[in-house]
Amino acid sequence: MTIPTIPRAAQDSHALVAERWRALGTAAESQAALADEASLQDVARFSRNIENFIGTVKVPVGIAGPVRVQGMHARGDYYLPLATTEAALVASYSRGAQIITEAGGCAAALLAESVGRAPGFSFVTLAEAATFARWVEAQYEAFAMVTARTSAHAKLLSVRANVEGNHVYVQLEFRTGEAAGQNMVTLATAAILQHVAGTAPVKCEHCFLEANYSGDKKASAHSLAGVRGKRVSAEVRLPRALVADRLHTTPECMTEYWRMAALAGVLTGTVGVQGQFANGLAALYIACGQDAACVAESATGVTRLELARDGGLYACVTLPNVIVGSVGGGTGLPSQRACLHVVGKGGPADARALAELCAALALAGELSLIGALCSGDFARAHAERARGVTLPRQEVARA
Amino acid sequence: MTIPTIPRAAQDSHALVAERWRALGTAAESQAALADEASLQDVARFSRNIENFIGTVKVPVGIAGPVRVQGMHARGDYYLPLATTEAALVASYSRGAQIITEAGGCAAALLAESVGRAPGFSFVTLAEAATFARWVEAQYEAFAMVTARTSAHAKLLSVRANVEGNHVYVQLEFRTGEAAGQNMVTLATAAILQHVAGTAPVKCEHCFLEANYSGDKKASAHSLAGVRGKRVSAEVRLPRALVADRLHTTPECMTEYWRMAALAGVLTGTVGVQGQFANGLAALYIACGQDAACVAESATGVTRLELARDGGLYACVTLPNVIVGSVGGGTGLPSQRACLHVVGKGGPADARALAELCAALALAGELSLIGALCSGDFARAHAERARGVTLPRQEVARA
Amino acid sequence: MTIPTIPRAAQDSHALVAERWRALGTAAESQAALADEASLQDVARFSRNIENFIGTVKVPVGIAGPVRVQGMHARGDYYLPLATTEAALVASYSRGAQIITEAGGCAAALLAESVGRAPGFSFVTLAEAATFARWVEAQYEAFAMVTARTSAHAKLLSVRANVEGNHVYVQLEFRTGEAAGQNMVTLATAAILQHVAGTAPVKCEHCFLEANYSGDKKASAHSLAGVRGKRVSAEVRLPRALVADRLHTTPECMTEYWRMAALAGVLTGTVGVQGQFANGLAALYIACGQDAACVAESATGVTRLELARDGGLYACVTLPNVIVGSVGGGTGLPSQRACLHVVGKGGPADARALAELCAALALAGELSLIGALCSGDFARAHAERARGVTLPRQEVARA
Amino acid sequence: MTIPTIPRAAQDSHALVAERWRALGTAAESQAALADEASLQDVARFSRNIENFIGTVKVPVGIAGPVRVQGMHARGDYYLPLATTEAALVASYSRGAQIITEAGGCAAALLAESVGRAPGFSFVTLAEAATFARWVEAQYEAFAMVTARTSAHAKLLSVRANVEGNHVYVQLEFRTGEAAGQNMVTLATAAILQHVAGTAPVKCEHCFLEANYSGDKKASAHSLAGVRGKRVSAEVRLPRALVADRLHTTPECMTEYWRMAALAGVLTGTVGVQGQFANGLAALYIACGQDAACVAESATGVTRLELARDGGLYACVTLPNVIVGSVGGGTGLPSQRACLHVVGKGGPADARALAELCAALALAGELSLIGALCSGDFARAHAERARGVTLPRQEVARA
Repeated sequence: MTIPTIPRAAQDSHALVAERWRALGTAAESQAALADEASLQDVARFSRNIENFIGTVKVPVGIAGPVRVQGMHARGDYYLPLATTEAALVASYSRGAQIITEAGGCAAALLAESVGRAPGFSFVTLAEAATFARWVEAQYEAFAMVTARTSAHAKLLSVRANVEGNHVYVQLEFRTGEAAGQNMVTLATAAILQHVAGTAPVKCEHCFLEANYSGDKKASAHSLAGVRGKRVSAEVRLPRALVADRLHTTPECMTEYWRMAALAGVLTGTVGVQGQFANGLAALYIACGQDAACVAESATGVTRLELARDGGLYACVTLPNVIVGSVGGGTGLPSQRACLHVVGKGGPADARALAELCAALALAGELSLIGALCSGDFARAHAERARGVTLPRQEVARA
Repeated sequence: MTIPTIPRAAQDSHALVAERWRALGTAAESQAALADEASLQDVARFSRNIENFIGTVKVPVGIAGPVRVQGMHARGDYYLPLATTEAALVASYSRGAQIITEAGGCAAALLAESVGRAPGFSFVTLAEAATFARWVEAQYEAFAMVTARTSAHAKLLSVRANVEGNHVYVQLEFRTGEAAGQNMVTLATAAILQHVAGTAPVKCEHCFLEANYSGDKKASAHSLAGVRGKRVSAEVRLPRALVADRLHTTPECMTEYWRMAALAGVLTGTVGVQGQFANGLAALYIACGQDAACVAESATGVTRLELARDGGLYACVTLPNVIVGSVGGGTGLPSQRACLHVVGKGGPADARALAELCAALALAGELSLIGALCSGDFARAHAERARGVTLPRQEVARA
Repeated sequence: MTIPTIPRAAQDSHALVAERWRALGTAAESQAALADEASLQDVARFSRNIENFIGTVKVPVGIAGPVRVQGMHARGDYYLPLATTEAALVASYSRGAQIITEAGGCAAALLAESVGRAPGFSFVTLAEAATFARWVEAQYEAFAMVTARTSAHAKLLSVRANVEGNHVYVQLEFRTGEAAGQNMVTLATAAILQHVAGTAPVKCEHCFLEANYSGDKKASAHSLAGVRGKRVSAEVRLPRALVADRLHTTPECMTEYWRMAALAGVLTGTVGVQGQFANGLAALYIACGQDAACVAESATGVTRLELARDGGLYACVTLPNVIVGSVGGGTGLPSQRACLHVVGKGGPADARALAELCAALALAGELSLIGALCSGDFARAHAERARGVTLPRQEVARA
Repeated sequence: MTIPTIPRAAQDSHALVAERWRALGTAAESQAALADEASLQDVARFSRNIENFIGTVKVPVGIAGPVRVQGMHARGDYYLPLATTEAALVASYSRGAQIITEAGGCAAALLAESVGRAPGFSFVTLAEAATFARWVEAQYEAFAMVTARTSAHAKLLSVRANVEGNHVYVQLEFRTGEAAGQNMVTLATAAILQHVAGTAPVKCEHCFLEANYSGDKKASAHSLAGVRGKRVSAEVRLPRALVADRLHTTPECMTEYWRMAALAGVLTGTVGVQGQFANGLAALYIACGQDAACVAESATGVTRLELARDGGLYACVTLPNVIVGSVGGGTGLPSQRACLHVVGKGGPADARALAELCAALALAGELSLIGALCSGDFARAHAERARGVTLPRQEVARA
């Protein structure tokens, strides 16, 4: 049986793109929509980001904000570019952002920073596994030196081992500078494995560079309680009158909602409890050249609402798995770079500020969404949209 | 305090976009990268998909395949367009797809179809809550009629109630035709709530259209065991020689990896156990105008590898929360529509076929990724990439 | 190698017990403590409950209460016998019970009743698995008849199938009358499997009576959202003054604790969120001849505290997996029967009332524990105990 | 309203017990079954273990074994006393134990040891919380000294802080010598809190000794991946012939079962994946004076079965949350002490050996249970029991 292969070469080109479209046999209109002139001009530039290139998909970008943030790294008023095809999303986040700003801004804090890789080792016996685990946990110094040789930006933070029968999972945690860092930690781990192969006191049967213990691109209880990428928290206090004027509800109703929604998360076994982090994060990640697949892990966390003693609303969010960078991935592509410049007010936002802005964005989304569910605007916004009516005000929300 | 607001109007226009860019104060280069001529021409078209529009982000698209599928709805050889900025991703999925095809194709099955909304009701007492729960579970017929009036495509499947003290969560499950359906079920639920308000035997204190029990855009144990959107499974048998030739490893090593990786998922508390569904799904969703935020829920599921009696490899994946549609969302935008036509070989793929292709894509990704982790190609691919070397062969994988 | 075997016979006897003790070679004092006269007299009676009998362990029993309950099945004031060796446990639950009673009692409701068995079937292909799943879900009538022939008390409630690749899990749900029912559903399932073997349209490779899908004796998200055994809820409203007088704290502090404790459960990935159900349930189960291993599943659920509008405290608990019976297991043994009579005020409590009392007990424990953590009595109680001082008042709690 | 109170005094006595029985108003037969002569003689002895004492419940004890263990702390052949009222349980574990012994014994290893307490602190702002968290993580030395003053056996191992908005959870981890240690860590934590109150750089709003972050008596993902009490693993290799002779099945069938059962655990959201740890642990804990409520946390973990290259079976279990001690709790009561002497072959088993024996016991149970499910003996055993027939051979199992 001969299976057709996709035309490839060491260097991608217009001609190859055209050949691929011929192979697809789709209508010229489709080709034109993806392989437009501008996209074709960038073929070489894209070749570090994609294989089997056939063009670009154009995702509309809207801005939300300004959101005022008093963070450790993000400080000031920010507009956030959100790339999405889902109506009402930008409007909802923008409403939340503006309410935060009207309330004087939100606090934000980067609480921890670390990206993990978790190689797995199998042995013949539990005794060997236990011996290896004890040994490996004592190798921090050696592994840190090996790590440093792989990249000037990679720094090993810790080495822990977890034994399960004759298997050992080794958790390596790294700092990765301005990069999101998944590739950096992969290369560092590969170098560590070579070092282990030459020095370990017991020989393993199998060794895998990543044994699925790092939580890479999936929601996990382990990453929720710890950190993957950046752990950030943001909080705001909304005066009672602001809740009434802008969200058309009361702090009492919003905290009642929170209790019910949090327990729904518990009862259905979600990782963390929150209304909705995924909408905003996916849109910001796509706009800013981040790895959109990381939404699977980044969109977990905790939202908490409380009735403050002064009758206002206290709200906070914590996102333990924000994976963002200002270099690497898609951050160097023209339109993605432009979005990073929008966030960074001229220059690219640094990775830590970007992470705190993710928390601020999530907080904005929660306030708008929960407000809409309490006031009844949630259904109304969707109803209007369904009838094709353009939205008369920004008080809308989307789940 | 005056907070600047983003320029808006009932009808979006070039002038408004320009005004927004002035407000952002970013360099002209950034504006040009997003607000290019073609994007500006589509301002009106985008206005049903975005608010506060400032342009489009261009995400490169590569094709993976062909993947041969014997599904209930998808049958034949398919090329899948993947939009991503992460190098090696398309190459890895494409490798997996081709291996499946060389093995004669994968089976795929749509196992269940349903989208839920879960309004929440609070009462004064547990007794009232229990009374309401009994009543509401008997209202299927009435609610189904109400649902039918809201859309010709919406069909109510079931009504279940869950009591927690004086709170009641009501799970409404719907079919939504060719649409992903989140908006459709929101409108149907709003109509049901109006009906409930007029007919329920006990009056609630609060009623929320969605009380966070539906699993919307988050990984949940509840949706994993059930269905959210579409539940699909795919399987393939790879001859031993094919594993050796194309993945450079053995079925024994791959099943050993699977055991270790599955238990890593268990130990770290992931929802489901799998190597990596998020990469492929995010890329396919972005390309095809699906809701990228749904990756948070769709990227959960189960992968299983077994050593077959003939020495080959049996592999299957199950994805219970695939949220896709062939209408609605971004499916009508030009470049997204073009990608749907690539999938559909000329016309748009129907939603059920698209869901089965998601399973096939996930299966392809698992085979390529696990193969690379077993053969050592995983680290090699990343190393080459880091050195800026173009990849000499397709045997690469990416996590 | 000869391995010693434990002396056994069709009929157990004093002589065999003595032989076993000789084999153990332990001091006479140990033998005397377990194989006392009374225990030996009951050798025959115990033989339906234990193998390799060597005597009885004496677990001290204390009473907690009275707790006033307005349930659907339990109505009135109850004393609950708790068997434990952990100091302060009975005192803490008794304090909570009395506070509930002083507040006028708690409401309680049996919300659902069902015990599951989940046989697993493996097939060669996904297609066969899907075919079998469709078939089996249509067999309710036939399976219900088969079930009825195995026991007058067993009633099949539902049949659902879940496909994962070429595997099918079948969830059979049953009512089991006054028995906890695990054995009853095992026998019914065995009969159903025989029926399946003769009638299924596709032949399975393997068939297992229980494939670990039923949640038997383990905490699971699936059982938390559904029911295993009996799902019960209880609630109470404590006037502000009662919280001050008896718990030495305020409703505000207790709700603040609840929020923090609930999110700690979320962050650490517990099944449900609660302070502590295990202490009370384990003690009641051991006293009343229930299956103590079921604590692993029964001790999950949800506690919720709210500040009421009148400044008092609203508290509720929901336990979805209470596994209790008034017949079977250890319920017929003399001292266990006596405990059941204490609960039942002369006769054995029926299973449904017993389940509601489990909810009331859990509620009492939560109030006392959280009260102690808020007032500081928690540490004090333990400090006194550590110094060997008998406790001067009942205001103590234990975790 | 006057609520009856249970008769109490600083010193418990026969008279008080009699008074309590009068208050209960139960038949004399019930009183006799609980408040027998021997139990009454021990009133004073029990007063350190129970309040509101009314007698003892007699739980039958059977022995399982011998199980041969090559552990780090448990070495040799052991008989394990199991207290249960569930028929077939002892027989099943005993069968598993003997098979392990026939195979030459199992390896066992204590992998980690630690008991946690997790006080919670609330602040006004996130900034204060972050400041406190940084401070508290630097206080290990000071806290360790405070800890040492509370008990000669308590040793502080680590201090970690987790920030969620304006809340901080502090995880204190301790060694507790021969005691299970929950009370010891409570007292140490109370002392640490007093120290914190006098030295912290920011003042908290609320401080709770335990904020539900320690996993105390509940299954949690956090404790599964880490340790609570003692983390132990055990493994065995069964020759193919032994599986055939004693379990009447094949290693292939058992590994097929394991795959299906493990994924069932994943799909239903259990904490860990295992057939059944709760039965054996509950029975051993009750017999040996351990805290039976800890079954809720101890019964989580991981079982893994593999087909070995020689055609035999490799099996291992890992239990990360075994909470056992040789002093404290019920370990000093006569019949419980006697059981500890049975385990310890004359003297009490030390805590670490006891933990390794828990792993061996769990392994025995898994082998017997899975064997029975593969051979069909599972249903047969229950069927015989239901007909009241005494079991003709030991090949039975119980779930």
